[in-house]
Parts: sequence; C-alpha cells; structure tokens
Amino acid sequence: MPAPVRRFEIIGAPYDGASTLGFPGSRYAPDRIRHALGRITQRVEDGQVFSLESGQLHTAPQITDVGDAEIVGHDLFATLGHTSARVAQSVREGNVPILLGGDDCFLFAGTQGLHDATSGSVAVIHFDAHLDVMDVNVQQGTHSQSSGMRRSMELDRASTAHSIQVGLRHFNFPASHDYLRDSGLARITAAEFEQIGAQAAIARILERIDGADHVHLSFDIDAIDPAHAPGAGALEPGGITSRQAIETVSALAPYCDSFAVTEVNPMTDHQDMTATLAAYLCYYFAVFGQEPAAR
Amino acid sequence: MPAPVRRFEIIGAPYDGASTLGFPGSRYAPDRIRHALGRITQRVEDGQVFSLESGQLHTAPQITDVGDAEIVGHDLFATLGHTSARVAQSVREGNVPILLGGDDCFLFAGTQGLHDATSGSVAVIHFDAHLDVMDVNVQQGTHSQSSGMRRSMELDRASTAHSIQVGLRHFNFPASHDYLRDSGLARITAAEFEQIGAQAAIARILERIDGADHVHLSFDIDAIDPAHAPGAGALEPGGITSRQAIETVSALAPYCDSFAVTEVNPMTDHQDMTATLAAYLCYYFAVFGQEPAAR
Amino acid sequence: MPAPVRRFEIIGAPYDGASTLGFPGSRYAPDRIRHALGRITQRVEDGQVFSLESGQLHTAPQITDVGDAEIVGHDLFATLGHTSARVAQSVREGNVPILLGGDDCFLFAGTQGLHDATSGSVAVIHFDAHLDVMDVNVQQGTHSQSSGMRRSMELDRASTAHSIQVGLRHFNFPASHDYLRDSGLARITAAEFEQIGAQAAIARILERIDGADHVHLSFDIDAIDPAHAPGAGALEPGGITSRQAIETVSALAPYCDSFAVTEVNPMTDHQDMTATLAAYLCYYFAVFGQEPAAR
Amino acid sequence: MPAPVRRFEIIGAPYDGASTLGFPGSRYAPDRIRHALGRITQRVEDGQVFSLESGQLHTAPQITDVGDAEIVGHDLFATLGHTSARVAQSVREGNVPILLGGDDCFLFAGTQGLHDATSGSVAVIHFDAHLDVMDVNVQQGTHSQSSGMRRSMELDRASTAHSIQVGLRHFNFPASHDYLRDSGLARITAAEFEQIGAQAAIARILERIDGADHVHLSFDIDAIDPAHAPGAGALEPGGITSRQAIETVSALAPYCDSFAVTEVNPMTDHQDMTATLAAYLCYYFAVFGQEPAAR
Amino acid sequence: MPAPVRRFEIIGAPYDGASTLGFPGSRYAPDRIRHALGRITQRVEDGQVFSLESGQLHTAPQITDVGDAEIVGHDLFATLGHTSARVAQSVREGNVPILLGGDDCFLFAGTQGLHDATSGSVAVIHFDAHLDVMDVNVQQGTHSQSSGMRRSMELDRASTAHSIQVGLRHFNFPASHDYLRDSGLARITAAEFEQIGAQAAIARILERIDGADHVHLSFDIDAIDPAHAPGAGALEPGGITSRQAIETVSALAPYCDSFAVTEVNPMTDHQDMTATLAAYLCYYFAVFGQEPAAR
Amino acid sequence: MPAPVRRFEIIGAPYDGASTLGFPGSRYAPDRIRHALGRITQRVEDGQVFSLESGQLHTAPQITDVGDAEIVGHDLFATLGHTSARVAQSVREGNVPILLGGDDCFLFAGTQGLHDATSGSVAVIHFDAHLDVMDVNVQQGTHSQSSGMRRSMELDRASTAHSIQVGLRHFNFPASHDYLRDSGLARITAAEFEQIGAQAAIARILERIDGADHVHLSFDIDAIDPAHAPGAGALEPGGITSRQAIETVSALAPYCDSFAVTEVNPMTDHQDMTATLAAYLCYYFAVFGQEPAAR
Repeated sequence: MPAPVRRFEIIGAPYDGASTLGFPGSRYAPDRIRHALGRITQRVEDGQVFSLESGQLHTAPQITDVGDAEIVGHDLFATLGHTSARVAQSVREGNVPILLGGDDCFLFAGTQGLHDATSGSVAVIHFDAHLDVMDVNVQQGTHSQSSGMRRSMELDRASTAHSIQVGLRHFNFPASHDYLRDSGLARITAAEFEQIGAQAAIARILERIDGADHVHLSFDIDAIDPAHAPGAGALEPGGITSRQAIETVSALAPYCDSFAVTEVNPMTDHQDMTATLAAYLCYYFAVFGQEPAAR
Repeated sequence: MPAPVRRFEIIGAPYDGASTLGFPGSRYAPDRIRHALGRITQRVEDGQVFSLESGQLHTAPQITDVGDAEIVGHDLFATLGHTSARVAQSVREGNVPILLGGDDCFLFAGTQGLHDATSGSVAVIHFDAHLDVMDVNVQQGTHSQSSGMRRSMELDRASTAHSIQVGLRHFNFPASHDYLRDSGLARITAAEFEQIGAQAAIARILERIDGADHVHLSFDIDAIDPAHAPGAGALEPGGITSRQAIETVSALAPYCDSFAVTEVNPMTDHQDMTATLAAYLCYYFAVFGQEPAAR
Repeated sequence: MPAPVRRFEIIGAPYDGASTLGFPGSRYAPDRIRHALGRITQRVEDGQVFSLESGQLHTAPQITDVGDAEIVGHDLFATLGHTSARVAQSVREGNVPILLGGDDCFLFAGTQGLHDATSGSVAVIHFDAHLDVMDVNVQQGTHSQSSGMRRSMELDRASTAHSIQVGLRHFNFPASHDYLRDSGLARITAAEFEQIGAQAAIARILERIDGADHVHLSFDIDAIDPAHAPGAGALEPGGITSRQAIETVSALAPYCDSFAVTEVNPMTDHQDMTATLAAYLCYYFAVFGQEPAAR
Repeated sequence: MPAPVRRFEIIGAPYDGASTLGFPGSRYAPDRIRHALGRITQRVEDGQVFSLESGQLHTAPQITDVGDAEIVGHDLFATLGHTSARVAQSVREGNVPILLGGDDCFLFAGTQGLHDATSGSVAVIHFDAHLDVMDVNVQQGTHSQSSGMRRSMELDRASTAHSIQVGLRHFNFPASHDYLRDSGLARITAAEFEQIGAQAAIARILERIDGADHVHLSFDIDAIDPAHAPGAGALEPGGITSRQAIETVSALAPYCDSFAVTEVNPMTDHQDMTATLAAYLCYYFAVFGQEPAAR
Repeated sequence: MPAPVRRFEIIGAPYDGASTLGFPGSRYAPDRIRHALGRITQRVEDGQVFSLESGQLHTAPQITDVGDAEIVGHDLFATLGHTSARVAQSVREGNVPILLGGDDCFLFAGTQGLHDATSGSVAVIHFDAHLDVMDVNVQQGTHSQSSGMRRSMELDRASTAHSIQVGLRHFNFPASHDYLRDSGLARITAAEFEQIGAQAAIARILERIDGADHVHLSFDIDAIDPAHAPGAGALEPGGITSRQAIETVSALAPYCDSFAVTEVNPMTDHQDMTATLAAYLCYYFAVFGQEPAAR
Repeated sequence: MPAPVRRFEIIGAPYDGASTLGFPGSRYAPDRIRHALGRITQRVEDGQVFSLESGQLHTAPQITDVGDAEIVGHDLFATLGHTSARVAQSVREGNVPILLGGDDCFLFAGTQGLHDATSGSVAVIHFDAHLDVMDVNVQQGTHSQSSGMRRSMELDRASTAHSIQVGLRHFNFPASHDYLRDSGLARITAAEFEQIGAQAAIARILERIDGADHVHLSFDIDAIDPAHAPGAGALEPGGITSRQAIETVSALAPYCDSFAVTEVNPMTDHQDMTATLAAYLCYYFAVFGQEPAAR
C-alpha cells in the first residue's frame, strides 16, 4: 500500500533582523519567492504536472500558502518563537511545512518547530556556505544568522550524530574547528561535493540521517554559488551549482519532515533569478517529496 | 575534393511582440549581438583567424550582414512571414542564414524559411529550457514564443522523427507530456546533458538528425543557465553551461543548413555578457561550420 | 627541518590606463579587494584559521598591506617602473608580494619585479582568457593590457620553456598563433581545463615549471567565467569556474615566489562578488603557500 | 448640499504590445503600482487619512481594485476593446475608473471607455512628453503608443476644442505640426510649464476644459522628467517635476471623470521609485477628487 | 571678538536594525559617506579651502573622525544608549558631533546625546519625508525609525515649541494629525518649501529655534527627492532638491550644536551619489558652521 | 539678407585616459550619443523638423558625422593633437564642429582646434561642476581632465576676459581661488544659476562673450545635476537641471563656433538617459545655431 500522500504548507518569515554580518534584504524574499512559485504552478492541469527531469506525469502536490508567521520587526525572540510555533502547528496538523525566510536565524526556528511538534530524535540537513555554529558574542548575541546550527543542536532531542552540513567552504574560526570536532557533526564541503558529484553526496547524506526519527532540511541559499544565486546574504565563491541543488533536494525530499529556504535576498538579486531558484527548490521538494520514504 | 566552403548571412529580427510570457526586450538583441560580433571579428588578419580551442589557423568565415528582416511591430504574422521569406531567400541563394531574434516566435520563422526554400525533410535541433509545443490558447494565440516547435513540426516536410529538443527542464503542462509522447519528438534534458556530458550529447543529436535532408538549428539562449546567460526572456535555473553550448554548436555546425539565436534580452543582461555569448555562438557556428559535413 | 614560513605583502596598483580594449575601472579594485580581505581575515583567532577545505587548523599567514605602489595616472611607464620596483623590493626583503591590479599591464610589472630582484630563470604561470602577446600597434603601444606576456617573456632571464598560459579561449590573431608556435609557450585552454579537470591541470602546470628558478603567478580574473567573475575587464564566456581557480591557486602557491591578480573591475561587478573572489584567491594563496615547496 | 462622494475603481491593463518605439516592460506596471498603493493606504485609520500637504484630515477615498481588464497578449484590438469596455462599465456603474497601463495605447482605450459610457462632449487632458498624434504607418499601424491622442480625437463626441496636451517637448514630425495647427489642440509644453509654474498651468487647463461634458485625464509618466521617473518607456530630459505632477493632478481631479496612468516601466525603474510615484498620483487623484467639482 | 572656532567629530552608527518599514542597508552608510568625505577634503591646502558658492577662502574646518559608536547588532537599546552616550561625550568635550546613521532610530539617539550633555532647552530641526511621531505598535515597538521625533520630544528639556519638521509630504495616520495639533510641533512641508523657496524656509526655521538653548539638526536623507537621493530608506516623490538642502544646511549650521544624517542607503544608491550628497551636507555644515552664531 | 546657414560636423573622441580623478568610461560616450542622436533625427521629414519648444517648423540642420578623431589609446598627447587638428580642419572647412568626448581633456583639444583654425581672440564658455584650472601635479600631469581650462586660457589668443565658467560648485583648492582672482575668469556658480534663472544667466554669458572674435562652447555633462545626468565622470549634487541646460545651449548656439560635450559616461548611466540628454544638447545646438548671430 503506498504511503499516504503528504500535504505542504508555505509559511513566510519576512524578517532579516538577525543578519548581523550578511547583506540585509531577505525580508523581501517570501514575497518574491511566492511570486515565482505562482508562475511555476500555472502549469498544473487537472491535478497533474509534467516533470521534464523524470519524463513523467506527477500528481501536483497539495501546497497551501498559510501566510506569514507573526513577525515582530523589533523583537528577534518573539519572531523566532512565533515562527517555530507556526512550524510546529503545521507539523502537528500532519503537514510538511515549507518555511520561507528571512535570514538564517530561521535555521533554528525551523528545527525547533519540528522538534517541538514531535518526539524522538531530530536530524538536520544543513546546506550553507557557512557553519552557523557561533556560540555567542557581543555583536551577534545568541541567535543571529551565524548561530542557528549550534542552537539547533542544543535542542533536547536534536541528533548531532545524524545531522550533516553541506556546501561549506573557505575559512572559519578555530573555535568552530573545535566545535565540529567535539560535536561530531558531519559535513560535505562544497569542494568535496564538486569532487564526488551529486549522487554520491546524496548517498552520504541518506546514510547519515538513517536512524533519525525526524529530519529537517534547511537550505541557506548561499550554499549555491553566487553565479547561480546572486541574491543572497553573502556571495561566497565556489559553491555548488543550481543543478546539483535541485537534484539533491529532490532526492532528499521523501526523507524530510520539514523544509526551509533562507537568505534569499531580493535587494542583491538579478531579475529575481535567485527567488526563482528558491521557488523551484520548494516545488521540486513538494513534487518529489509528496510520497514519504519508508522508514 | 573538399566540400565548397559555405557563406553565412546575418539576418536581424528585432521583434519581441510574441513574448507573452517571458521578459520583453529581445527586440534590442540584434543590435547588441552585432556589436559584440564586431569585436570578435577584429582579430581576423589576412583572411585567417586563430582558434585557441583547436590550436589551428582557420580560414575566416565569410559572413555578410544583410540587415534586418522587414519587421512590422504591430503585426506578428507579417513579421513572421517577412522573416521566413528572408531566411528562405538566403538559403535559395546558397547561403547559410544566421537569424538573430527577437523572441522565440522566430523558431517557427526560421524553420519555415529553410523548409520553404528546400525540398525533402527538415529536422529541427531545438535548444531551449522550454518545450514551445503549446497549441493555442486565448492569451497567446497560435504563434507565440511558446508554440514555435509545434508550429514547426506541423510544416509539410518537417520531420519529427529526426528532430530533437535539448536543454529542457522543470515542469510543464500534462498536455505537453502527451504531445511529446504522441509526436515522438526526442529530447535531452538539461539534467541528462549534465550527466552524460557534451560529447555524448553531440553524438545523440547527430544520430537523431542522421537521414534528414535539411537541418535547422534554433537556439533559445535560455537553454543556457542564467548564471551564464542572465540576459534572457526567462531565468530558469539548472541549464547547460556556456562552455557546453559553445562546444555543442561548434560540433553540430557542419550538419546544419541554418541557425537562429533567440531570446537574448539586453534589458535584463549584465554588461552585454549574454549578447557576447550569443555572438560567440554565431561565430563558432560559422568558423566550424564553413565546411559542410558529408551527407 | 621545515622550510621557513613565508611572509606576504599586499601591494596595490590602482591604475587602468592601459586597458585600451577592455572595460576600464580596475583602478578601483585594490580598494574593494582589500575590503573583502578584511572580512575574510576577521576569522583569524590566536594566529590560527580553520580551513573547511582541508579540515585543518592552519597558522594564519603573515600578510602585511604595504599600501599602493606609486601610481602616476598619466604616465604608464612611470607606473610600471614604480610598481615593478616595489615588487622587487618586496622580494629582496624576503617577502612574497601579492600585487593587486589594476589592469593587465601589471602582468609585466609583476614579472619584472620578480625578475629584477632575483638571479636565475623566471617562469610565468599566466591565467587569462587572452594571450596578451601583442607586440606593438599604434592604438595600444608596447605595454598595454594586451602585451604583458610578450614583454615578460622578453626579459633577460624569463624562461618561456617553463612558462604556461591557462584559461585561454576563443579566437585570436594569426600572428599570435605564430608567436605561440615559435616561442614554445605552453598552454591549457579553458576547454582543455574543463575536459581534464583541475587536478590534471595542476599536474601539467607543476611539470612545466619544474626546473625554473623562480615562478611568478599572474591571474587575470577573466580566466574565470563571467558567471563567476562579472566584474572583469572583459566578459568572455566559457571560462574556468571559481572553484577550479581556488583549487588550482591553492595547489600552485607553494611553488610561486610572487602573485598578482589583475583586471578585477568594480564598475562592472555585482555586489563586489568578483572582488570577494579575488580576495579569496589571495588568501588561499597565502594560507597554502606559506610553506614553500622544496625545489 | 455637497456633491455625492465618488467611488474609484482600479483597473489594470498589463500589456505593452503596442510599445513599438519605447522600452517594453509596462506590462509589469499594474503589479508594482498596486504594491506601492498598498503601502500608501496602510495609513488609513477609521476611514480617514491625514494629508500633510493640506494639513487636514480627509475621508479616505473609496477605492476598489477590480482586477485586470481582459488582456489578450497577442491581439491589440481585442485588448483595447476589452479595456475600453471595462472602463465604460465602471463609468456606467457610477464610478471613476483609474486605469493602470500598460503602454500608451491605453490613452485611446481610456478615452473610448469614458466616451462610450456617456453622452455629450468628451475632453482629454493628456500629459505626455510626446504628441501621440501619429496617423498610421507601416511599422506602428493605427493604434500604437504613438497614435492614442489622434484616435481619441477622432471619436464622435471627442472635443478637440476642450482638450489639451501638457509636458510636450523636443522635436517631432512636421506632419505633427500641421495636425496640431489644423486640429486646434491646445498645449502647454514642458518648457512653458516650468516657466509659468504649476498654478498658472492648472488655471490654463481648467479654462480649456470648461464647457466639456466629460473629462478624461490620461497621464503618460514620461511627462515627468526621467530624473523623477526613470521607469518609463522613454527617458526624455527636461520634463516636469514629480512635485508639479502631484500638485497638478490633485487640482484637476475634481473635474475629471476617469484617470489613466501609462508607460510606467518596472524593467527600467530604480527600486520601484516610478511605480511609487504613479501610485501617489492615483491616490492624490482619489483623495482630492472624491468630491466632484460643480459643473 | 570672534566666537571661538568649533571643532567637529564624525561618529559612525552603522546599524539599521530599526528600519522596520524602509529598505534596510543604511548600516553601510558610514563607510561610504566617509569614503566620499575623503575625496572632498583632498582639496584642503595649508588649512584653507575655497568655496565656489561663497567665492571665498575659508579656514578648513577641524573635523576628526572618532570612529563608530559601539553598535550591538542584535540589541537596539544598547545601540541607542551607546550612540547617545558617544554623542554626549563629544558635546561635553566641547565638540560638535556629526553623527552618520544608520537608520532613523538615531534621530532620537542624536537628540538624546545633545540633551544629556547640556542643560537648558533643546530644539530639534528635523528634515524628513515622514513624521516619525509613531507612539508604539507591535510591529515597530517604541524606538523604530518611525518614532524618533516623538521620543525626542518626550525628553525632559526638549522644546517642542522651538522644534520644526521640514520636507514632510504625502499621507499619514490620523493619529499623527492629532499629535501634531496637540503637541504644537511646527512644520514646513516639501510643497511649502518649494513654494516659498529656501531663503524663506531658512528664515522660518531660524525664527522657530530662536530662544532655544541648544539645537540638534537631524537630516533624514529622504527629505530630499529620490531623484537626487536614490540611496534612501524610502523613495518618496516630491521632496526638496539637493541644492536646497545644501543651501539650508549651510545657513542653519552656525545655530546648531550637533548634526546627524540618517537613512542613506548604499544598497539602493546609484554609484554612491547619495553618499556623496550626504558627505557634502556634512562638509558644508562644518565649513559654514565653524563660527557659531551669536545667541 | 539672412546669414548663411551653417553646417555641423560630429567628431567622436572615444578616449578617457586622462580621467585621473573621475569615473572612467566616457570612451563609450560617442557610440551611445550617436545612437540616441539617430533616434532624434528620425523625425526629420522633407528637410524640416518641428520644435515643440518654439512651436515652429525649422529647417533640419545639416549634420554630418565624420567619424572619430584619430585616438591613440596609450598616448594622451597624440590623442589631443589629432583631435584638435580634426576640430581645426572642420572649422577651416567652414563647418561648426560638435566634438563628442571622451573625458574633459578634450576641453583643451576643442579650444585649441578652434584657436588654431582662426585668427583673432577666442573665448570659452565652459559648463562644468569643476574648475579644471589645475596647473600641474605628479599624479595628473599637465593635460588631465582637471586642467583643460587652464591650458585653454594659455593659448596665444585665448581671451580670459571674454571667457566664463558656468555650473561650478562645492569646494576647491585655494590655489584655484588665486588663479581665478588673478586671471579674471568670470563665473556663474550652480547656486547663482538656480537663483537668477536661465534667462538672466544667458544674458550674463552673452554680455561676457561680446567682443570675442570666436567662441567655443564646452559642456562637461556634470554641470548638470546627477539626478538628470547620472552617467557622468563625477556625481556632484546641486547642479543645474537638464531643462536649464537645454534652454541655455539653445540660446547660446548662434554665438558659438564650435561645441563639445564631454564626460558622458555610459558605464555609470541609467538606460542611456545621460547619453540621450547629451544627444539633445547637440541637436538643440544645431537646430537653434544654424543661423549664426550677427557679430
């Protein structure tokens, strides 16, 4: 008997108040991603859509836009709290939330939402150019765009042993080296990804999350190279390609209980090309993730 | 005895009135592509040009710019008619036309031009992110930028069996799925292209067109990824690279009787980088296509 | 006993008066590259930095910014002379200069600086889309952005036999073909680089320079594809990727005595993404080049 | 007894297929103007709004967005017909339509809508840098963005004697000189407007329309200088200021039965500044035009 | 005896976390304004500078850049507190602080700094398109970019009776109307400014502040029209010109004890033209304000 | 008997090698100004053109494009020499040259061309934000974009007493103050121009040049405010408007023997709006200057 088909809920989080290092502007992302998503879904007919990649007709996924989480522009903690609560509500109601940031403080809010709505272990697949494992400093506090993975891993049932970071590159603080070593977080750097290819990367990720009870997929758009994603909070050369991102997200989708795309920045974008890419990531996630993988 | 060297004619089609879905602006493409082509050809000396890729001196191709087809800004059918007639004239005079769109309604006009000037079967190699097999709808009519391949395949001697689409991606109407299945049109999606590489893709295309009497190569610039071709009518992530495009067009050129580049859009371009890429596609086509393949 | 660790000196050359063919604007590059470099080096702690690519802690390289060479805006030869003298001074003082152009006239000034400060043969590894082997013409004179490699190879102890050009593409003058053939300069075109991959390319370069007494690495940013480096003097499609550039520069660094990055153009850049890439090239060069290779 | 307060209807016309000379892109204007209008109207409280210019509280105007007219992207005449019918319907239902183009072919559609819904004479106040009195030519046909005023004046009850053009500048065809002379159309050039000031210009316009039974106000955004309105179909220097436009539209509003803003072009705009200006023109028109002038 | 010449201190406030409604990005303003100021001051020779406007040589003002206030990116109140303390310190040390925002939350911080360092009444001359008299709401809290004037007027010795707002325009909340009426704040709208001219506006402002013990001049760059200041947090048409702004700030400078420029936004700017304008406002303020007016 | 009608010659000078302080890029101006001019002149019919400003039909001026002066990209003095010689040739042949820079080193070349082709005194009307009276310094040498007026006034028969500078603003070197005082050069600053208006400014200029035997009008586009002319070598706030520029150039044209427009910069322009403005200045100059004023 096939698994029951899953329903998806779009939740916007138009807030970039925690982007203490990157370009601000991701507050405008939900609006532009939705606009692009509207164009993609115009091709649904009679509940079906044709995928060129698979060459097949697919049932068009059930996606409901439930509007924005209750963002409070001047209050980061209220914003995070409302957003994670909204994500949790979606999960509790049996849906798969698709959270549209906003900056990468929502890496934590998304994880927390899945965590609070479930019991059992929670793994995070974290696509990003950066580690986001900052502990605390004066300028950024505890919950900035640089600390989301660390805060996520501190949740009670978060499973570092099943979590993995993908797309990392360049240089970081020695303290981050120590944190990674001590915590046992796994990673596939952008350089390795390019070397081994998308299929091998997918296999390694699936192997890593195997055994986790729940999986949150959080995608900071800067995991992708700025050539493909110029509208981002940071333009870090040497990222993965948009083709690899699409292929990987499609393959992981059946294994994931929630999804977030963060750091899309319309203020630095070129003709909405990054918002369009983000919209496709969401739609591929839904099309290929509507039938959950057997666990 | 070597095949007689072919002569090329540049024909402009500065019209984008059929771009009912994509960004308008390709009306400015012929001007900017010509400008870029002028810079490339400054390196010809004594009738020769040095190709870094081949490492050889080549006879500089004979390229004549015959100006624009008679575009009628408010009349799509007159525009299509005049343009296909101009292409046909070029073929009849023994030349290889290089048509510079304009939007992708010229996919049809280019095919029709080759078709009307010849007898025997006509194959189309169609590079595009999109299928362009729309039949008819109220908003777009019969001959928009979304229907060129369908209209082309309806020509009397068009050979669907020898035609192929390259670079396709993402989602489309279920009706398009049915059309592709029923018509038997072949395709190499962008995902497959990335997977198998340019050499294998070229081989599959050549195998497909083998047996056709005439071949039209029509290149919608959005077959190429928006990272490499930001100046396009649509910015669809996950396309082929500019390097792959150059390699493929160079290899196919000896087998093609006419060429068109469409949907280059200077209004969304970055410092003419897409117009420059289009100009290179034209020049590689001419340099490596001046000696026709044996049939 | 380990080789003594090397120190690096940043030297700016904010001059683009020799950019007779490309976009002007590289005069603003040193300012923007330094700005980006300042952000990268914020991650150094206690003299160490964590490389995601190597997965290791590294001693943070000793990099001193010694300011700009004495540029004379209206006098190309004074500018070249002062700049090569400043490079030479840096080498004589036992440092590894990192020269930030400016346009590609500094290909020559950088080579000359290393040459004049040393005895023995000097090889040049020249990344570029273009050959820069123009001899002389009325419009560009003898020392433009198009002639730097030729002038470099004319230096007394320059070793053409150990020099190599990487990233070349498209078309050039027949005269250039003859110069390459007669001089014996080696090359890896962008097409070959893509075909054989970065590791094989690195191996070929290292084999080529083997035996040279000194090596200057000069990197015209347009060796990289305009998708990754839109802020350049020319936007030539089909270049190498930023990932390949980073990997290659990192691997070559221990073998090089001086480094230059040229033709970064903030006037055509997108949100400093190319200046950021250039800053990373410099930093990877320093991190992975601080321990010189045994010769 | 005060005149009954008027209600306004926003009608979008996202079509630029008649922009045969100017930049295309005004098809995106209704979306962006509505977005800006949404921000302006956030300041309404309890049915009131505070005007800084008047220093008064005003009843917030009743504005209903009735969506887009039925645009047919490939069929100019269907588009014009549907749009003028939609405008006429709005007038017949007792409302004041505010038509958001689209290109300036809607100058005619707007006038025709008012004309067809009423009896008696119809005057047009036409703000534009250009005359739009082209009769017919091969390239533009009869109903392009260059002929709207001529077609409008040809309507049965159009009153050239009460119509006036404002903001005209630069050079035009001798044939246009003759048409203006023969038709008796009045005008205030941009140069005169600057010289006499907004108050005198308003007085001349009001004097001109005095006696007309109905008045259509059609505002091509390029009447305003490109410094203030860079997002336009043409960037003609020497136009009126945005301040003058706001003041003039506010003063004319009580005398006008319908309003249209055309040629706003998001593709050439800077951060929606022109769309924002257009939204303000609409809102000032509604605030200050809700109480009709006595006739 | 001439009044003692005043010294100026530049204080940066690179923070835009309170820009809950406008475009974020003013965090980058101090960097770009300083860059522009550096170019302006290159023309000082022997302690003198030549003003074209006055036709005179002037003593070059003593301007010291004391760096940035201690900004805490995730903590608005710490940021405001540190900034007002830094401004106060500057005043206590006998200097005239020039505060470079950051967003318009610094309207309050600047006023508070002057207030806390002095005794006696404090007037505010507030240039802005907007009122900034919001009391409190959920989304913006108490100290956003929309409430700075209200918070300023609530300071113990703030003198509403001597304060004035300049450049206001468009529409606002009815509650704001009531606040203005009840508080007695004076204003010159942008429309009035255009009507009466800069000289009359200056006279009215000077008359208003006459009798205040201290005066803070706070200039939100959006008081100026977006044609002249595209790099701003909001692009409100119909503002004053840059010429008028320069003339007015120069005339008011001798009467002001502190100055702030806020809401300059490099992310929406065009080639730093707004940052350059802001730098000029600062320099005119210093040149013409170094000799304080007699009180 | 009417004065003989004058003929105009367009001479391009695509060189910006002397822009040692401003943005480079004016090398692309001749191309873009010609493109814009081509659009303007499409409205000529039967040798006539209709001016909206005058309300009259005018004989279309005889304008011949004689191509570019012989620019030598690496040799400033050759470039200046060839250009002034080309201007002189045009004057000697009885034409009125219209020189399209290129940077403002051509202020000198234009003056010298008129000077060398004539006898008697030569006056210069110099529109500019800057003085351009630098003598010599190491960085700029003697003939940069900052010294053109000084070099012009040093020509044998240059008449400082009949020359005038218009549009000046902001701050300059004390040495410039002394030069202006000692040389007796007249000026109308941008501030004065705004205060007295275009008509009074024209009258003062005409009074100043009265008595000179020949007059060269040289227009650095930055005399105009960056709001109207963003595509310039420097963006100096507070300039004259495009409307004032058009009116003034039209009025001065009959009195001028040659004209130059410099420092238009397509690299910083917005959709060619500054190139379009420059083209209009040229065309107004020709239309209203074809009948020379009686001397």
